[in-house]
Amino acid sequence: MKMSQLFTRTRKEAPADEQSKNAQLLIRAGYVYKEMAGVYTFLPLGLRVIDKISSIIKSEMDRIGGVQMKNSVLQKKDAWEKTGRWDDEIVDVWFKTKLQNGTELRLAFTHEEAVTNLMKDFISSYKDLPAYPYDIRTMFRNETRAKSGLMRGREFYWKALYSFSKDEEEHNAFYEKIKQAYINIFERVGLGDKTFLTFASGGTFSKYSHEFQTVSDAGEDIIYIDYDKNLAVNKEVYTDEVLADLGLSKAELKEEKAIEVGNIFSLNTKFSEPIGLRYKNEEGKEVPVIMGSYGIGIGRLMGTIVEELSDEKGIVWPKSVAPFDLHLISLAKNEEAEDLMRELEKAGFEVLFDDREDVSAGEKFADADLMGLPFRVLVSQKSLDAGGYEIKSRSQDDTQILDKEELLDYLKKVYEMEI
Amino acid sequence: MKMSQLFTRTRKEAPADEQSKNAQLLIRAGYVYKEMAGVYTFLPLGLRVIDKISSIIKSEMDRIGGVQMKNSVLQKKDAWEKTGRWDDEIVDVWFKTKLQNGTELRLAFTHEEAVTNLMKDFISSYKDLPAYPYDIRTMFRNETRAKSGLMRGREFYWKALYSFSKDEEEHNAFYEKIKQAYINIFERVGLGDKTFLTFASGGTFSKYSHEFQTVSDAGEDIIYIDYDKNLAVNKEVYTDEVLADLGLSKAELKEEKAIEVGNIFSLNTKFSEPIGLRYKNEEGKEVPVIMGSYGIGIGRLMGTIVEELSDEKGIVWPKSVAPFDLHLISLAKNEEAEDLMRELEKAGFEVLFDDREDVSAGEKFADADLMGLPFRVLVSQKSLDAGGYEIKSRSQDDTQILDKEELLDYLKKVYEMEI
Repeated sequence: MKMSQLFTRTRKEAPADEQSKNAQLLIRAGYVYKEMAGVYTFLPLGLRVIDKISSIIKSEMDRIGGVQMKNSVLQKKDAWEKTGRWDDEIVDVWFKTKLQNGTELRLAFTHEEAVTNLMKDFISSYKDLPAYPYDIRTMFRNETRAKSGLMRGREFYWKALYSFSKDEEEHNAFYEKIKQAYINIFERVGLGDKTFLTFASGGTFSKYSHEFQTVSDAGEDIIYIDYDKNLAVNKEVYTDEVLADLGLSKAELKEEKAIEVGNIFSLNTKFSEPIGLRYKNEEGKEVPVIMGSYGIGIGRLMGTIVEELSDEKGIVWPKSVAPFDLHLISLAKNEEAEDLMRELEKAGFEVLFDDREDVSAGEKFADADLMGLPFRVLVSQKSLDAGGYEIKSRSQDDTQILDKEELLDYLKKVYEMEI
Repeated sequence: MKMSQLFTRTRKEAPADEQSKNAQLLIRAGYVYKEMAGVYTFLPLGLRVIDKISSIIKSEMDRIGGVQMKNSVLQKKDAWEKTGRWDDEIVDVWFKTKLQNGTELRLAFTHEEAVTNLMKDFISSYKDLPAYPYDIRTMFRNETRAKSGLMRGREFYWKALYSFSKDEEEHNAFYEKIKQAYINIFERVGLGDKTFLTFASGGTFSKYSHEFQTVSDAGEDIIYIDYDKNLAVNKEVYTDEVLADLGLSKAELKEEKAIEVGNIFSLNTKFSEPIGLRYKNEEGKEVPVIMGSYGIGIGRLMGTIVEELSDEKGIVWPKSVAPFDLHLISLAKNEEAEDLMRELEKAGFEVLFDDREDVSAGEKFADADLMGLPFRVLVSQKSLDAGGYEIKSRSQDDTQILDKEELLDYLKKVYEMEI
């Protein structure tokens, strides 16, 4: 895509009211636009990142048997009253609205009730189980103070999978599978080294839940990490009893600030019982379905990547989620650059071509660093005289001159190694 | 995908309160689930259709220079007050909500104001024009009576493109391009023969707007079609004066009921003037940007396809938007069918495999007809004895037996001819 087609621009300054590094960089680089605190418009570059992260998540959910659907935002009272979560005392982040006839509706912040209720139409026998529907969509939380940029949104992009199993054994087997899928996801988006499976408080029905916590100074959680065992404990369950139970020792644990980028819960019959989602088992007995709930905040994940993988010049996207593979810069050589763009696109690469005229080389380089695509390719009289194009990785300082064939070979090698 | 993984089921009866054919068939076949009047959950099959339609639309928008972004649902007052549309007397379909601190917010039913306002950050010179952002997303209308199934939703899936041009000439050139893109879209989703470019009332700034109307008994609009000229006029502008202006004659026009599946508007400076989106032109003079707005209701389009392309047995999806290419049925030959599924998927086909046991052949055939995939492939002892697999097109009655190689060749031919 040519930059002239992309209508956004970089900005020298972030908005004064934006404290967090992720929002500052994403706004300055033209990825998001702030509508109000906690509500961001995803500009074309930002949407491309969201889509890349979403398809990584989708592929991991599909691989373990997940099936994508699309729930509604508007929620009516019925099912939520049965679980007690319609009550403002229990859930204080509802956005409320009304039909013209006065019927009270609210905007979904999650879908356990909705999906459990819907499943009553489809699950009646053990033959209908298991089922693993998931949804990737916008949700809403009426946060009193929305801060931290994309970390805590009033309107946020979220993946939720709900599992429906016939018994604990089937549930536990899936729980282990999705735990691994989550590990894969954080690895694939470039946060593998910094993200830890973390024991957190369970609920009425389970001893623990699991969070995935990414170590970061921008984090709002405190976790204790055993780096040898690659495990962590959330401060909320950091007691002698829990540590003994998990076979962890205080001496081996290091305290860190971290961002919760995902969580997985065993729900047992917490929702199926009150909503009445029951099935007939092999013995002909009616019993409630065993459930689990598994979330990932996609905007938050994008924000976390920016917090952790950026430098003083700007964002440094991992190849897997960058909006484009290459930042192609022309210095008064637009024709040659356009030919190269066509070749690169034909080979399957996604190219952002800075075709702006009367913008200085320095400005173009600074923009490329701020926007953070994995590679920068320069076409100039100097590069052509030297025999081709200058390529530089965003994360390294050295450059090299390659001719067209060498460039294509180099990139193919780098991107195949990645996959 | 195996049907056992897809958790939905077909139903013999549609809900009693559901009058429209599109909702009846889509609910019975397991594509959508009714949350409340005008609010539907898209089940996995339904979401696949929505995604197929969306990617056809996306490809046509990208082809003419569109760039996708994602606007927010939550809207604050500022820009909307400037255009007068915050006023309930002007717009009576707002869903209203509030922040915890009392700030009034509303749910977007369109984004002219939001995008025009946002563009003030990015457009200041003629060099920044044109710009063609578009969005494919859920919107909200607080309809007093939501009826007609997916035709008139309170929560609906919508594509909107907004054009920003420096003058009328540039605007008009794009307007003609997107008109053609719309014609392509309706052609590609299988409604080309029944969809007519229709003159409708303009606004303060334009003589006419254009609608795309699909002839249907389920339609709520009345249009007058000149079948020779492939043009129509909406009843609202069906006057002698307009007909003379358009060179149409009453004698050549046929009255039809129709569904409005898309509309395109010239907005001139209707939004840019009050919101203050101005740019410096080549002469250094500050002038307002010339705009246009171009919508397609994606859920409505899906409903229209069902209304028009179904028979007494169920839905008949066009190949381009069917959730899967093939409905593979096994009669006690699951192993053979699964092998075939793998071969078909390897060749690039999307297969829905009815692997249910203890379900009769009759029931499986009836479900296949109801669900409406383009081809049904049967693996049974009888088909294997006859030398292979029985294939039948959903829209034709005859069947034929093909061996694996013949089947693949047949399908490749059919699907290549399509593209």
